Amino acid sequence: MSGNDKMSFAELDLDRKKRTGFPEVVFCQGKKDEFLKDIFTKLYAANGEVMGTRATKKQFEIVKSVLKNAEYNEISKIITVRKERKKLVGNIAVCTAGTADIPVAEEAAQSAEFFGCFVERIYDVGVSGIHRLLSKTELLQKANCIVAVAGMEGALASVIGGLVAVPVIAVPTSVGYGASFDGLSALLTMINSCANGISVVNIDNGYGAGYIASQINFLAERGKVR
Amino acid sequence: MSGNDKMSFAELDLDRKKRTGFPEVVFCQGKKDEFLKDIFTKLYAANGEVMGTRATKKQFEIVKSVLKNAEYNEISKIITVRKERKKLVGNIAVCTAGTADIPVAEEAAQSAEFFGCFVERIYDVGVSGIHRLLSKTELLQKANCIVAVAGMEGALASVIGGLVAVPVIAVPTSVGYGASFDGLSALLTMINSCANGISVVNIDNGYGAGYIASQINFLAERGKVR
Amino acid sequence: MSGNDKMSFAELDLDRKKRTGFPEVVFCQGKKDEFLKDIFTKLYAANGEVMGTRATKKQFEIVKSVLKNAEYNEISKIITVRKERKKLVGNIAVCTAGTADIPVAEEAAQSAEFFGCFVERIYDVGVSGIHRLLSKTELLQKANCIVAVAGMEGALASVIGGLVAVPVIAVPTSVGYGASFDGLSALLTMINSCANGISVVNIDNGYGAGYIASQINFLAERGKVR
Amino acid sequence: MSGNDKMSFAELDLDRKKRTGFPEVVFCQGKKDEFLKDIFTKLYAANGEVMGTRATKKQFEIVKSVLKNAEYNEISKIITVRKERKKLVGNIAVCTAGTADIPVAEEAAQSAEFFGCFVERIYDVGVSGIHRLLSKTELLQKANCIVAVAGMEGALASVIGGLVAVPVIAVPTSVGYGASFDGLSALLTMINSCANGISVVNIDNGYGAGYIASQINFLAERGKVR
Amino acid sequence: MSGNDKMSFAELDLDRKKRTGFPEVVFCQGKKDEFLKDIFTKLYAANGEVMGTRATKKQFEIVKSVLKNAEYNEISKIITVRKERKKLVGNIAVCTAGTADIPVAEEAAQSAEFFGCFVERIYDVGVSGIHRLLSKTELLQKANCIVAVAGMEGALASVIGGLVAVPVIAVPTSVGYGASFDGLSALLTMINSCANGISVVNIDNGYGAGYIASQINFLAERGKVR
Amino acid sequence: MSGNDKMSFAELDLDRKKRTGFPEVVFCQGKKDEFLKDIFTKLYAANGEVMGTRATKKQFEIVKSVLKNAEYNEISKIITVRKERKKLVGNIAVCTAGTADIPVAEEAAQSAEFFGCFVERIYDVGVSGIHRLLSKTELLQKANCIVAVAGMEGALASVIGGLVAVPVIAVPTSVGYGASFDGLSALLTMINSCANGISVVNIDNGYGAGYIASQINFLAERGKVR
Amino acid sequence: MSGNDKMSFAELDLDRKKRTGFPEVVFCQGKKDEFLKDIFTKLYAANGEVMGTRATKKQFEIVKSVLKNAEYNEISKIITVRKERKKLVGNIAVCTAGTADIPVAEEAAQSAEFFGCFVERIYDVGVSGIHRLLSKTELLQKANCIVAVAGMEGALASVIGGLVAVPVIAVPTSVGYGASFDGLSALLTMINSCANGISVVNIDNGYGAGYIASQINFLAERGKVR
Amino acid sequence: MSGNDKMSFAELDLDRKKRTGFPEVVFCQGKKDEFLKDIFTKLYAANGEVMGTRATKKQFEIVKSVLKNAEYNEISKIITVRKERKKLVGNIAVCTAGTADIPVAEEAAQSAEFFGCFVERIYDVGVSGIHRLLSKTELLQKANCIVAVAGMEGALASVIGGLVAVPVIAVPTSVGYGASFDGLSALLTMINSCANGISVVNIDNGYGAGYIASQINFLAERGKVR
Repeated sequence: MSGNDKMSFAELDLDRKKRTGFPEVVFCQGKKDEFLKDIFTKLYAANGEVMGTRATKKQFEIVKSVLKNAEYNEISKIITVRKERKKLVGNIAVCTAGTADIPVAEEAAQSAEFFGCFVERIYDVGVSGIHRLLSKTELLQKANCIVAVAGMEGALASVIGGLVAVPVIAVPTSVGYGASFDGLSALLTMINSCANGISVVNIDNGYGAGYIASQINFLAERGKVR
Repeated sequence: MSGNDKMSFAELDLDRKKRTGFPEVVFCQGKKDEFLKDIFTKLYAANGEVMGTRATKKQFEIVKSVLKNAEYNEISKIITVRKERKKLVGNIAVCTAGTADIPVAEEAAQSAEFFGCFVERIYDVGVSGIHRLLSKTELLQKANCIVAVAGMEGALASVIGGLVAVPVIAVPTSVGYGASFDGLSALLTMINSCANGISVVNIDNGYGAGYIASQINFLAERGKVR
Repeated sequence: MSGNDKMSFAELDLDRKKRTGFPEVVFCQGKKDEFLKDIFTKLYAANGEVMGTRATKKQFEIVKSVLKNAEYNEISKIITVRKERKKLVGNIAVCTAGTADIPVAEEAAQSAEFFGCFVERIYDVGVSGIHRLLSKTELLQKANCIVAVAGMEGALASVIGGLVAVPVIAVPTSVGYGASFDGLSALLTMINSCANGISVVNIDNGYGAGYIASQINFLAERGKVR
Repeated sequence: MSGNDKMSFAELDLDRKKRTGFPEVVFCQGKKDEFLKDIFTKLYAANGEVMGTRATKKQFEIVKSVLKNAEYNEISKIITVRKERKKLVGNIAVCTAGTADIPVAEEAAQSAEFFGCFVERIYDVGVSGIHRLLSKTELLQKANCIVAVAGMEGALASVIGGLVAVPVIAVPTSVGYGASFDGLSALLTMINSCANGISVVNIDNGYGAGYIASQINFLAERGKVR
Repeated sequence: MSGNDKMSFAELDLDRKKRTGFPEVVFCQGKKDEFLKDIFTKLYAANGEVMGTRATKKQFEIVKSVLKNAEYNEISKIITVRKERKKLVGNIAVCTAGTADIPVAEEAAQSAEFFGCFVERIYDVGVSGIHRLLSKTELLQKANCIVAVAGMEGALASVIGGLVAVPVIAVPTSVGYGASFDGLSALLTMINSCANGISVVNIDNGYGAGYIASQINFLAERGKVR
Repeated sequence: MSGNDKMSFAELDLDRKKRTGFPEVVFCQGKKDEFLKDIFTKLYAANGEVMGTRATKKQFEIVKSVLKNAEYNEISKIITVRKERKKLVGNIAVCTAGTADIPVAEEAAQSAEFFGCFVERIYDVGVSGIHRLLSKTELLQKANCIVAVAGMEGALASVIGGLVAVPVIAVPTSVGYGASFDGLSALLTMINSCANGISVVNIDNGYGAGYIASQINFLAERGKVR
Repeated sequence: MSGNDKMSFAELDLDRKKRTGFPEVVFCQGKKDEFLKDIFTKLYAANGEVMGTRATKKQFEIVKSVLKNAEYNEISKIITVRKERKKLVGNIAVCTAGTADIPVAEEAAQSAEFFGCFVERIYDVGVSGIHRLLSKTELLQKANCIVAVAGMEGALASVIGGLVAVPVIAVPTSVGYGASFDGLSALLTMINSCANGISVVNIDNGYGAGYIASQINFLAERGKVR
Repeated sequence: MSGNDKMSFAELDLDRKKRTGFPEVVFCQGKKDEFLKDIFTKLYAANGEVMGTRATKKQFEIVKSVLKNAEYNEISKIITVRKERKKLVGNIAVCTAGTADIPVAEEAAQSAEFFGCFVERIYDVGVSGIHRLLSKTELLQKANCIVAVAGMEGALASVIGGLVAVPVIAVPTSVGYGASFDGLSALLTMINSCANGISVVNIDNGYGAGYIASQINFLAERGKVR
């Protein structure tokens, strides 16, 4: 076998949706053009819908050339292809500390929407202006689950954790400079949170947070996974 | 005011149970004896039950001297004082990679039981003998939520994440030596998990994982928090 | 010269009070008994008052054996010897996130009091129960300077920074476990604070924070250093 | 709501100047063009002046296209828009170890000047040629507050701390190479300073240092904030 | 001697093949064009074959201009020049967790093939879909040695280590983002593996793993090195 | 099930010897007395031999109280129980840089001997006295595999790697002080080795190195595992 | 004073040569063109010679436009301007592990030559082919001082330290990949060297090593500094 | 051979003094009693003198039981055995920042004295009271070499480097707390020094610094090593 024949290596996990309730999603970053066309086409054929994260605009155009109803969001870098929008159920609140955290938050929010969850966006409510956050307390308390997205010192999750009774998924972002160490400081802040109910995903992993929030939202809404 | 008068500083958050559905829990490590007596007595009076984590046997005896029905578990280091055991609802699976991870797992399991959740223990199923874990697949798939406790290389959470449709709370432990860096390596493994549905709490934070698992379990069972 | 003759090496900086407005303070940790007796006696003779930080009870007794009016605070680990208490001026607020941060806070507070500053203590107001902190807003806004002491995720400084118009001196503490890395995580949180007006001192450096806060308090009260 | 509608998320904190005595300042780095136009215009309308940091020349031109009296400094990367220059009060000394630290120092100095403080610049006085620094001792001792900017080994703050009676705000810079680790080494040096009166801000955070220095300068000059 | 005369410094280790059984291989990254021509020509003359790793396409063209039978693989970035392909002996299994790990795996596989080993490729069998890996158990158990290539959380090696009786050479890759820290997290996971029989090479060091695997494969096949 | 009933959790992998050719070995560190008695007895019954690593003398006495033919080596901290010594086959060279590395080397050597391999010990041949090592070249070149054990700067593996044609298993040790960071520096040195044929195990993991060396030794001697 | 007037800040230390025996040298990296012209001209006027390190070819051309006898070495990135070459005295051996370390070694060697020292170059003698180094033992033993330049695992300095009786200045380089962490691993190796007589300078700091080697060489040759 | 027979492994390098000009020195830390007796006796017999570093008082008594003229210094933890004191030649200045750095400085100073060098001690001259150091400038400028010992922020070496024309050997110490990270911060400060002529040894490695300083001192005094 030739080492060049890379396309054949990826074995699609088409059974995945049945096993986990969620379809396979494409992590586009670094993927070759031919591979993208192939994988989007196969997943769309199998599931009737397909989503890709961390896609460049150029990658979107590659996908659109084979799947005409593909859509792209420039902030979240998400490609979606679907026949119709799902009815959105439940309630996930996605919050950010600053405006620079919004791309990661949108990756979380749009992923959850793709899976069929209703999302409430509460952006730019960082703790250095605590009243902005507190004015949203009621909105926060309506959610089945919170996604808290913050870079720099990452304190947002701790304050939210003290305001609500539901799980908070904390997403550190690489926003910041100097001793933010590309998100490591925010990650450490969140892992050390003194508030209860907070767990953490990888730096900038909006998709991962959206996935977990969707799992919890569905559990809460229906007492079982889709 | 005198700096020596330390007892008066701690303002008990007696309102907490109403706000979050969970009573305040005492982190005993490093607490002074008089303080412990005082806080356990007050919380027991307010809530009719009280739990303390990371307690030494000596601290338990201090508490028992004022609250006769206090109980202590030597593995989890948890003190519980309650009038009666709750009926346990739902299903949380708590798993460990090795036997050395069990104390942290028990902190998670017994916390969840204290809050009223049913817990399934699945211990010593580390990934270097993968068939031990796979033989428990059915048991895992019954749970509303999984707690995966592992030190050393921490790979347990990723494998479980691929087997189930519900959230996995990963707890790195400080078990290991050399380049385990007291749990940092396991934490990094878990944060970088290639599986979906995994979020992470602090090293050895069994209580935190038990808390989040309980939140999710109650959401799943009743569609709302207690 | 013999290498054993250690006592003679330390050259006391008796001129220091004139140059900086503050007397030299003794960092007791690890100091030999004979050295302590000697240095406390000399500084007391020169300045009419002397303070030592990070002292054990045993070290206090050594000092008391030569200076009868020595006093010791078991929480802050501070030894003070003085003829009379100073009139306290101005207003420094010293805050902690949790009760475990109090020893460091007391080192800051008692240092500032020794230098002649009035100190307002606001303890156990961590951000996971944000209303406890907000209920103290008025008290905070009266201060010339704030010292914010916090371990674990260290978010306290950022929230305070957004509530007041004066400088906040942030002190990370080694309180915490796991990924708190003995205060490193709190230090990084505070250095990355998104709030303005926050600067940071070394982990557990209550004395250093009390010193800076005193400098600012005197500048504010009198428009010049003592 | 569409995730694309990013402009609407940022809620301007127009009340900020009343609460803290300082107007909101724009951190331009990474901000989109439309957002910049909008936020500069609104803040200028609200406060009659506006400052932006970390701006590229291109961003300045965007701002100038809507606010004709905008000015730009290529070294500090600061945009200022104001009707008239304020009378400068008090005295802040801004020092650097080398010439490469000057851009960060200018961010501090020009921020303080924008807020209305008089700034004394003392540049290129690193400790490897200690006489250059010592020859400025008198100038240093006139200041209400010192900003010490240094990369590489960052020792400048410690030496200055021993020469003056007022607070020193230390700013580590990312100047250096190899084991300077983009400013981390300088940050650690400064946090560990053996001199009293030194607190530290984030790597390259000239603005933050200028802000705190201004707070202290106003406290010293008027016994209260503006 | 002039410092510019760089070509003459490198002393080729032409004796190497006799001493170790393996010919010297060229690490092309960063090498100057003239140097490449020279070293490939000399090694080819001495050994009748030559291989270069981490070569750009442009570097390949330089080599091809002097050695017409040079070949290049765009995935592995390997240049090979040889008179004829060797008969491949033994059995090395090269596995990857994901498709993004394939370039490093191909560097390992093609190096081993160049040395004369038979290689079985088992790609995209990461532990989050454990059944893909388990379905290859029989194939794995036929090998004399396994190379396990994985980024992100790097758990692949541990699971394989539990399935086979032969050494596993683990290669962390820099695949991932955020807290993967360019492969450091995967390296730590692998070094901490709870499975026996696992040793680790540098991040992305496919060549090094292929080399060791070849050493073991030849030992197993013939009871001695070539 | 009670959380206290810890003994029942550990499921012995009695099938392991058949699957991997090696019996399960007990990692004694931190194991409870009752657990040790139980596990040694069961493994001895199943396999007719049993080995335990990282055992204290006290743990040895516990084991000896139930298995009379147990033996203990105070340097390696290994307990062995067996009916008769195996005939030792093949040739593994175990080398150390200094005398302080010998305990880790003995863990490797005695593990390999327990598995049935002949071991040549070459100790105290660190690179700062290179002639000691070179005088052993012939001895090194007779081995099927080398284990190189070194702390501090860990350069031993690189030099050996250049002298032999077989795999070198490098074991960093926690020997050293200051910037040795408990073995991290040696680990990094070894992972970055410029020599071919070197792979690395965890800090102080003599057992792991002995295990891999045995795997290779058996492959070399018999062309297949026992 | 305007913040733009950067040129006037740098105070040349023209007195330096008298105080230390060495003229001031220009670190060109990042310096502006006008500044370079100015500083080279002034230093040349004062000292009759001037050297600049880390210069780009473009910077050289700037300097040459004002100082016609300027010379540039493309490997070391050093600009020199002088009236005549000095007679070279003493003997400094500059060694490298690999060819990729040569640019740093040349910075050391050419700096030492500029200061007037004779330099023996011994390149590409890394420890994985130890006989290349040993064949140069006699040459090494003639030197007054050794500069050992190595990246990756950095073991060269330890082996040399065991072969000679004079000080070894170790220079870690950023050569390597993966866990070399841009020279940090080599730095740690060198700092932890088990050989005597080794001290370390910053990563890639060839100039610094050349400077110290020159100090030692002059001390040895003349029993006193120039 | 038995693994227990540890004494026989250490091969004394009795030839060392001839090769390097310095006798072998015993690093006592962690050495067993029998080994110590043996090695001190053998080295004393061979060289007529012997020195041991990092010895406990108990180890000294062991040595004294076999070598009656053994002496011990409680500050430096050095054991010396010799027939007569050498005449001390040359001039090495050993400086410390604080009194807590003295034990490391004495290890350096007494090692150099043992080798036959004259040592000038200049202690407690840290940079936060710069005039203490400057008042010693003349003394510093008489030395052939300087050893600068400092913990915390480690700035001492940089300031000294600017005052003298000879090499400065910087020794970071583990003195400090919090973010001093047991000497790592001081090490980084010193490695990044902006002054010329500074090279660094391991944290607390007073012996290593004394050794290099002696090498340089002998080179300077006699133009060649003893």
